[in-house]
Amino acid sequence: METNWKRKHILSLRDFTPAEYNTILQTAISFREVLSTRTKKVPTLQGRVVANLFFEPSTRTRSSFELAAKRLSADILNFSPGTSSLTKGETILDTAKTYLAMGADLMVIRHKNAGVPQAIAAEMDRLKVKVNVLNAGDGQHQHPSQALLDLFTICSVLDLDKPRIELLKGKKIAIVGDILHSRVARSNIDCLLSLDTQVHLAAPPTLLPNFFSKKNKNNNLFLHWKIEPALENADFVMTLRLQKERMTEHLLPSLREYHQNFGITRSRLQLCHPHVKILHPGPVNRGVEISSDLMDDPNFSLISQQVTSGVAVRMALLYLIGLTHDDK
Amino acid sequence: METNWKRKHILSLRDFTPAEYNTILQTAISFREVLSTRTKKVPTLQGRVVANLFFEPSTRTRSSFELAAKRLSADILNFSPGTSSLTKGETILDTAKTYLAMGADLMVIRHKNAGVPQAIAAEMDRLKVKVNVLNAGDGQHQHPSQALLDLFTICSVLDLDKPRIELLKGKKIAIVGDILHSRVARSNIDCLLSLDTQVHLAAPPTLLPNFFSKKNKNNNLFLHWKIEPALENADFVMTLRLQKERMTEHLLPSLREYHQNFGITRSRLQLCHPHVKILHPGPVNRGVEISSDLMDDPNFSLISQQVTSGVAVRMALLYLIGLTHDDK
Amino acid sequence: METNWKRKHILSLRDFTPAEYNTILQTAISFREVLSTRTKKVPTLQGRVVANLFFEPSTRTRSSFELAAKRLSADILNFSPGTSSLTKGETILDTAKTYLAMGADLMVIRHKNAGVPQAIAAEMDRLKVKVNVLNAGDGQHQHPSQALLDLFTICSVLDLDKPRIELLKGKKIAIVGDILHSRVARSNIDCLLSLDTQVHLAAPPTLLPNFFSKKNKNNNLFLHWKIEPALENADFVMTLRLQKERMTEHLLPSLREYHQNFGITRSRLQLCHPHVKILHPGPVNRGVEISSDLMDDPNFSLISQQVTSGVAVRMALLYLIGLTHDDK
Repeated sequence: METNWKRKHILSLRDFTPAEYNTILQTAISFREVLSTRTKKVPTLQGRVVANLFFEPSTRTRSSFELAAKRLSADILNFSPGTSSLTKGETILDTAKTYLAMGADLMVIRHKNAGVPQAIAAEMDRLKVKVNVLNAGDGQHQHPSQALLDLFTICSVLDLDKPRIELLKGKKIAIVGDILHSRVARSNIDCLLSLDTQVHLAAPPTLLPNFFSKKNKNNNLFLHWKIEPALENADFVMTLRLQKERMTEHLLPSLREYHQNFGITRSRLQLCHPHVKILHPGPVNRGVEISSDLMDDPNFSLISQQVTSGVAVRMALLYLIGLTHDDK
Repeated sequence: METNWKRKHILSLRDFTPAEYNTILQTAISFREVLSTRTKKVPTLQGRVVANLFFEPSTRTRSSFELAAKRLSADILNFSPGTSSLTKGETILDTAKTYLAMGADLMVIRHKNAGVPQAIAAEMDRLKVKVNVLNAGDGQHQHPSQALLDLFTICSVLDLDKPRIELLKGKKIAIVGDILHSRVARSNIDCLLSLDTQVHLAAPPTLLPNFFSKKNKNNNLFLHWKIEPALENADFVMTLRLQKERMTEHLLPSLREYHQNFGITRSRLQLCHPHVKILHPGPVNRGVEISSDLMDDPNFSLISQQVTSGVAVRMALLYLIGLTHDDK
Repeated sequence: METNWKRKHILSLRDFTPAEYNTILQTAISFREVLSTRTKKVPTLQGRVVANLFFEPSTRTRSSFELAAKRLSADILNFSPGTSSLTKGETILDTAKTYLAMGADLMVIRHKNAGVPQAIAAEMDRLKVKVNVLNAGDGQHQHPSQALLDLFTICSVLDLDKPRIELLKGKKIAIVGDILHSRVARSNIDCLLSLDTQVHLAAPPTLLPNFFSKKNKNNNLFLHWKIEPALENADFVMTLRLQKERMTEHLLPSLREYHQNFGITRSRLQLCHPHVKILHPGPVNRGVEISSDLMDDPNFSLISQQVTSGVAVRMALLYLIGLTHDDK
């Protein structure tokens, strides 16, 4: 594969270019093909070490990155916060530097605080070491690999063989739910606003503050405190996970009321474009963000495809950033 | 290896046929031979993903399945319940479907509730996907791989080179201990009753309710509330792990009294056949289920052989069910 | 590589010979070279199983051993104490014997109690099985692989291409901090005292009892209750991690006072030899054992090199003890 990829770390989608999105989509197609072969493996990252530094625990995303790294033939080191030196007072940067000294070539980082992957990447650059950092979710800030697998999933619906960003032109995409606290929403908004789509956000006012309208630079972002105008003729509906903590924080009256006002149901789907598809980053609270039968309906739900896309897209991301020091 | 294996999932031994038992034994012999070579590995499951979904934690069984899968060259994903989406409200079926979407080909499932592996297998079949499910212990229901490694261990004692079920004909096998709560006992009872053996159960009445006699369809099951008649001339004695919780549940007066009445000791062994062998699924409470010195006596104890058999038998099981979609 | 290595287990450095140290250093050089190649892997331990039995949790040391074992192409089984049979009443020796029966060839053992790796090694020898035991830290007793990676790091400073113990002759090495509770200190003291160095221990009296002077058989051990005489003209300063528990145990007034009296700072470094280097086994409490800026100064700090050395030295140790049954 030839490519002009230059980006060393994937930390946020705020400044991604259309060309970069297309390179990722094309690379992910290649890896989707690898995954359809019998052996499913390529020697791309042989001898390299991928350190999964999940300071915030996660089974789903960690497993996806782990499988992606294995299929690139990398060696994997899993950092488990529960049993770590962190409880012994070591700083996060020192933990990262320990894995660097051990031989980590790529670091996949999740942390409950925004900015941690950025800080580690900056430290690696300051040290002038050939280490790539991939943000696997930082606080309420960004979760780029999730938005990129969403992009790959959506573009694959529009053209399975040649997913590319040009297909998105003029599409209406609704993002529904707890936007305020969602790093998935922020990464998706940054991505989609730059790609000639119309992005409609819908949530109760407590979960969709007005300051989100600052992102509206290309005149293609719309905020709604009711779900109906967002769904109207929408091509894709992205639902967001609702943390049950929001109730105890008095941001929501009840799950039942949330579902009544913002849950995706078969009758609400009538508002959308007839070919509408639904996404959810998982794990789903059945009957809250989305009605249970709709979640399982392959005519509408892309949830399984998102998980499947995740492995191919994460292989692409590890491969691409790894290219930036291929003389290693 | 040629075989007629047709069974897609291994969930329970209730309906296993003698031919299936012999296929498993023969396949396990082949893998026992692989394990005696220097490299110890075969490429059988290369490119396939084995997902260890241990909703109930276990080090021993998980390690055994993990090593079996590694030696078949599979990729392994470990699901760790403590740090999982389950705590976030995801259903068990949705967790399994996430691993399916990620690319899992075989799922090894342990859960504290009976029926979970069955439910996951039924869902996979409903979805018409080529995924195999292996029950690694569900509640107090079944633990088929444990009973199968016990079978392999016993038959290997009777003929090391050609373990086969015909060797069991007429053998008396005692199962002693907390039968009521034991999935190991249930799987072993189902297996042994169908194989021309005489199965004698022995336990205090609180741990051996009368309803177990319903399993006596071939007139070869015997229930005892004292240990002596079960041990008399027994060829094999299977002891079961005693959970200390049984005391707080008022099912047992004390560990000491249990040992006095049902513990396997050297003097009690006098009652058995001179070549008697003792099994225990582990982990053992030394001096409770079995006296400490007897446990370490290689003339009587098969405990180490059971663990060793476990790897070969689990390789056989993963291999055989994997055959059912070899066109994959 | 040719070698006369005979030692089956690495449990303590108390009786190591200079020839053994040099063999380890030379072997580690070879593996340091392997780590600088693109694939970074050798097939040395292919088919062998390394069981990491970390009864006391540790991310740093376990990751280091895991990476070392992977790069020797071994299969790895990780034992996680939280989810283990230990909570079910199994003895430590029985846990080790379970991993033996499963097929473990090498056991890397950490335990909060002194003597556990020794007890497991003795049991393996009694059973006459070809299993190697490596102590990865036992209570306040020994941590041989840490002292050996310190040795490799120090000797590499003195001659990068040919690290060897002869380079240490006459060097003054200060060990500063909580010596009483440190297995790292004990292993380093045993190693360095046998190698013609001058070893100066410095700590408050509560953390450096007089009985350490019993180790002074070659007249090269010196105890100080102030830091200055230890640092004076020192070639290397080994700082030790200070557990915060020491305060609640009334062994120390405060971290601030400890740092004031025993912390390594730029001004204290004036006392040392101009080429002085500082070591710390990690994780570091910045501003306690060592001032934060000094820790990051590559002119003085060897902390990163220690971590890097760890992988090569642990590869060497696993390789060397594995040689003792190469007919396996």
